[in-house]
Amino acid sequence: MLEYKDFEEKTIERTEIFKGKIIDVYLDDVALPMGGTAKRELVFHHGGVGIIPITSENKMIMVKQFRKPLEKVVLEIPAGKIDPGEGQQPEKTASRELEEETGYRSDNLKYINEMYLSPGFSNEKLYVYLATDLVKVEHPRPQDEDEVLELYELTLTEAQQAIQDGSICDAKTIFAVNYWELLQYKQG
Amino acid sequence: MLEYKDFEEKTIERTEIFKGKIIDVYLDDVALPMGGTAKRELVFHHGGVGIIPITSENKMIMVKQFRKPLEKVVLEIPAGKIDPGEGQQPEKTASRELEEETGYRSDNLKYINEMYLSPGFSNEKLYVYLATDLVKVEHPRPQDEDEVLELYELTLTEAQQAIQDGSICDAKTIFAVNYWELLQYKQG
Repeated sequence: MLEYKDFEEKTIERTEIFKGKIIDVYLDDVALPMGGTAKRELVFHHGGVGIIPITSENKMIMVKQFRKPLEKVVLEIPAGKIDPGEGQQPEKTASRELEEETGYRSDNLKYINEMYLSPGFSNEKLYVYLATDLVKVEHPRPQDEDEVLELYELTLTEAQQAIQDGSICDAKTIFAVNYWELLQYKQG
Repeated sequence: MLEYKDFEEKTIERTEIFKGKIIDVYLDDVALPMGGTAKRELVFHHGGVGIIPITSENKMIMVKQFRKPLEKVVLEIPAGKIDPGEGQQPEKTASRELEEETGYRSDNLKYINEMYLSPGFSNEKLYVYLATDLVKVEHPRPQDEDEVLELYELTLTEAQQAIQDGSICDAKTIFAVNYWELLQYKQG
């Protein structure tokens, strides 16, 4: 069995390429454990949250929105970036994003999982929460002013069809639908 | 119900930030559908494949490797980037990566799903395949020379424990384990 030192790639030199609002990009020269060097392209991100909101009618609330990198309108679970001040408390981000994007708050927000989305080049981590016991907020926090969102409520079957037809097409939302299906098997 | 034009963000100007071997980075000025403009940070990637290899003993083959963006050694399903020449045939990439990383080929490679990993800033798409009927290759294609890999075979319970203890921590591998669990429910 190999040890950590047999795997580790130590940074020899790090070059800053770009510092943005959402991502920072670096190019590293690394020393390979078996000798020699290589380049590593790195995208650093503060992480985000995804929320699986299930209504009392057993529907999942999803958000339709435009994603510029895909040039497509897609259906996703509510999600958002962690603000620097919220770094240690992703649950706060989850509560805030749920309210901003759906107009609901949850009296039962449960941590499910955390996952790196693209570990080959990025450290972006997503914290996923299940939100039940949803309560409509009278005067919800406004949505981000540069986002156009449309809300949908889907049954499990509708969500699975949306994966088949491609309107649901991102990893966190596919995770959410599979998680929901597993939950129904486990609850019998 | 909103239409595509109510969501669309048209590019006014695109600025090239970085052209790498794995990613290209751009900064767009976009026209918002409700008026005004915004910046969009974009990472373009050629996409990749992930393979869920299940042995005849009903174990999943995983690969331990160092991920520079995380500065961590993690367990993942075999995966790899699509080469430009393989763009239209991700199944070829899947066969190649399975052999390179595990020394097995599959007589039964089945397309499962495709998913965008981080649609907020990146167009990276992952094609996922289930690989069964595995056959040990006599002289497998060599691994990439800048990768150190160690192979493991995990039962479903071991894989679920590895998610709990954080040694499995990326979206595609968590997807794979959930997919495997669902498969067992469906097969009774």
